Amino acid sequence: MSVPSIASDTDIDVQSAMTELGERARAAAQAMARASTDAKNAALRAAAAVIRANSADILAANAQDVAAAKQRGVKGSFLDRLMLDDKRIESMAKGLEDVAALADPVGDVLGEWDRPNGLKISRIRVPLGVIGIIYESRPNVTADAGGLCLKSGNAAILRGGTESALTSRAIHTALVEGLKAAGLPEAAIQMVPTQDRAAVGVMLRMVDYIDVIVPRGGRGLIERVQQESQIQVLAHLEGLCHVYVDRGADLDMARQITFNAKMRRTGICGATETLLIDKAVVNTHLEPIIDDLIKAGCEVRGDEAAQAIDDRVVPADDADWDTEFLDAIIAVKVVDGVDGAIDHIAHHNSRHTESIVTEDSATAERFLNEVDSVIVMHNASTQFADGGEFGMGAEIGISTGKLHSPGPVGVEQLTTFKYVVRGTGQTRP
Amino acid sequence: MSVPSIASDTDIDVQSAMTELGERARAAAQAMARASTDAKNAALRAAAAVIRANSADILAANAQDVAAAKQRGVKGSFLDRLMLDDKRIESMAKGLEDVAALADPVGDVLGEWDRPNGLKISRIRVPLGVIGIIYESRPNVTADAGGLCLKSGNAAILRGGTESALTSRAIHTALVEGLKAAGLPEAAIQMVPTQDRAAVGVMLRMVDYIDVIVPRGGRGLIERVQQESQIQVLAHLEGLCHVYVDRGADLDMARQITFNAKMRRTGICGATETLLIDKAVVNTHLEPIIDDLIKAGCEVRGDEAAQAIDDRVVPADDADWDTEFLDAIIAVKVVDGVDGAIDHIAHHNSRHTESIVTEDSATAERFLNEVDSVIVMHNASTQFADGGEFGMGAEIGISTGKLHSPGPVGVEQLTTFKYVVRGTGQTRP
Repeated sequence: MSVPSIASDTDIDVQSAMTELGERARAAAQAMARASTDAKNAALRAAAAVIRANSADILAANAQDVAAAKQRGVKGSFLDRLMLDDKRIESMAKGLEDVAALADPVGDVLGEWDRPNGLKISRIRVPLGVIGIIYESRPNVTADAGGLCLKSGNAAILRGGTESALTSRAIHTALVEGLKAAGLPEAAIQMVPTQDRAAVGVMLRMVDYIDVIVPRGGRGLIERVQQESQIQVLAHLEGLCHVYVDRGADLDMARQITFNAKMRRTGICGATETLLIDKAVVNTHLEPIIDDLIKAGCEVRGDEAAQAIDDRVVPADDADWDTEFLDAIIAVKVVDGVDGAIDHIAHHNSRHTESIVTEDSATAERFLNEVDSVIVMHNASTQFADGGEFGMGAEIGISTGKLHSPGPVGVEQLTTFKYVVRGTGQTRP
Repeated sequence: MSVPSIASDTDIDVQSAMTELGERARAAAQAMARASTDAKNAALRAAAAVIRANSADILAANAQDVAAAKQRGVKGSFLDRLMLDDKRIESMAKGLEDVAALADPVGDVLGEWDRPNGLKISRIRVPLGVIGIIYESRPNVTADAGGLCLKSGNAAILRGGTESALTSRAIHTALVEGLKAAGLPEAAIQMVPTQDRAAVGVMLRMVDYIDVIVPRGGRGLIERVQQESQIQVLAHLEGLCHVYVDRGADLDMARQITFNAKMRRTGICGATETLLIDKAVVNTHLEPIIDDLIKAGCEVRGDEAAQAIDDRVVPADDADWDTEFLDAIIAVKVVDGVDGAIDHIAHHNSRHTESIVTEDSATAERFLNEVDSVIVMHNASTQFADGGEFGMGAEIGISTGKLHSPGPVGVEQLTTFKYVVRGTGQTRP
């Protein structure tokens, strides 16, 4: 099989092309489930080498994608996510090598026990099978997601955004070269060969060929996938993260954590969008915290109580409490203690990451227990919500669903398990 | 709140009734997540006592349900699943007491580690939240599912079959009495107050109020739920289980395992539906195995090779390899060794439970590794596929999906986890 070309929308029968893709993926998944750790690591390292060797080609493809996007009027953070440079290419290659260095989760014995009737039961980690990944403009997801699926013994079907199609294809070529070099099936990482939007609809109904769908992108994409998919979805939803500055907060710590949580990088899902501040300390704490943000160019939108403290605060409207700004904008609300904070979060969070700043450990424990989010923090910046920062290696995203594996999704989270029962002729009475 | 009555389809606004139910469930789930183990166990034991005390009422309600079902021409295994007697009522009560005796999974620390920057990360088990359970004729699911959700700190919204509506309502009354006696919110276990089919459609879109949907029933129900649900589904699919008798099988063991796997109880999901037999031993092993089955009243449908061995074998048609008979019928196919068995299973299994009978451990390991099912067995009856037999206590079903928790779903599997991060002011560089 050669690397599939990007066909024009008219000369391809989407349904049959996707079925073929699915059949190849299913066969590849069976081989990948049995692939040795050495072979998988060799493929990852070879792919990293090809990415470095092909960097001129990848940059040329990227320049074409960027030029086309600019022509369509794309700009700002969207354009930034699309653009590659030498540093980003090196970071992709290094990312694949880092994944090679991670422990192989496949075959891990998660539990073993004997039954009184002599049956020996064990729970063994196995790959998920075929993972369909649907993403938007970031072309590096091609390498990150492909690499994580490869290491965890899965086959991947990648469907990237139209804007980054040429770049993703160039990166995909390198991944396939890596698989070939290691003697693994090329179809272990495939790209959907058309940018026809209908292909996504077909993909979401391929229950016989795809085991799990991982959408990675904005709210619109995730909601479409969740509504349409007949396959189980491991959703990486938006991060509408909160910092709550409690009456027991140390002011300096509150300033540093709020500033870092909002401003370190505003475009990531762990960036804080709303600051909640206890009315008991609003007079002493709010102005210095806001001052840091405004000096760094952050727009502060507040409720009336916050506006009363500092006239640089502009009025927040109702939508601001539910908006993932992904920009240098923060919404500020004055609440009545930890109860007020927990209540506001319950109505507005996206179950991603929330942090309390306080020296009062009893208050902190209430917050940690009662806030229903995948990650809850005490005296730490929400920007630590990241698989790498958690010590789990690379991640494909942060899952905010309740099933399977909330939080960072790395190689371990891209596996499942099965029960192996060993008997000596037992029958059930 | 009093126990909701079963309103007629015309005098209720399904949508608003369901929203109210959802709001009550969400509030109850918050209380249940923080409920003590003692309170939860007291509720379970009190409910068991009320079930015993109310057994005459429950049987009377059941008699009405059964009479109505008979009038509609219902019979056979469906009617059997609907009918209660003193023994089944005692078994429900005992089931709740057994769940009380299980360890409380909520709050378990699943992992703890420190990061070089001083952050302390732990993974803590928490309830799923609100679980929607949709089931069919068995009224005992009301007690089983309600009890498991209660113990795992969740709120439950139960939607049972119309045929068992009065019985389920009588059982539900006992569960609510148990919650009241323990000071827990009555809304922790609610029943959908209408049998209007539209209520299921509404339930499957209640993304704000229900966290996980657990369908329990036949293929039609599961498929409808998987197609319509906008909420994550923990599906208990059918069990199209296989026994493969390998050339290395001990004949006596093969006879006993096959007989038990098929005939011990034919109506459960762990019952075997297809026997695969290695062509290398078909002349010696098939006739004695079939003989046991036929003498016990089992119909044997075979391929041509099986028919050639014994003229009591009737022809199997293509659909038989994909049919969960749930009855004294078995499909028999002659295959070419373990490769033939693995290949047939890959095309026809439902990922539930498959067993190999062989004394050859290398062959057994290949089968255990390569068959993609939630439970794979060596020299044991597929009828052991059961949470109780696995030592996990009661179960709500066997999940055959890849995400979350394949296999028996008991109290532990009705939980999820969150990450708790404790810092001392850390910000991300």
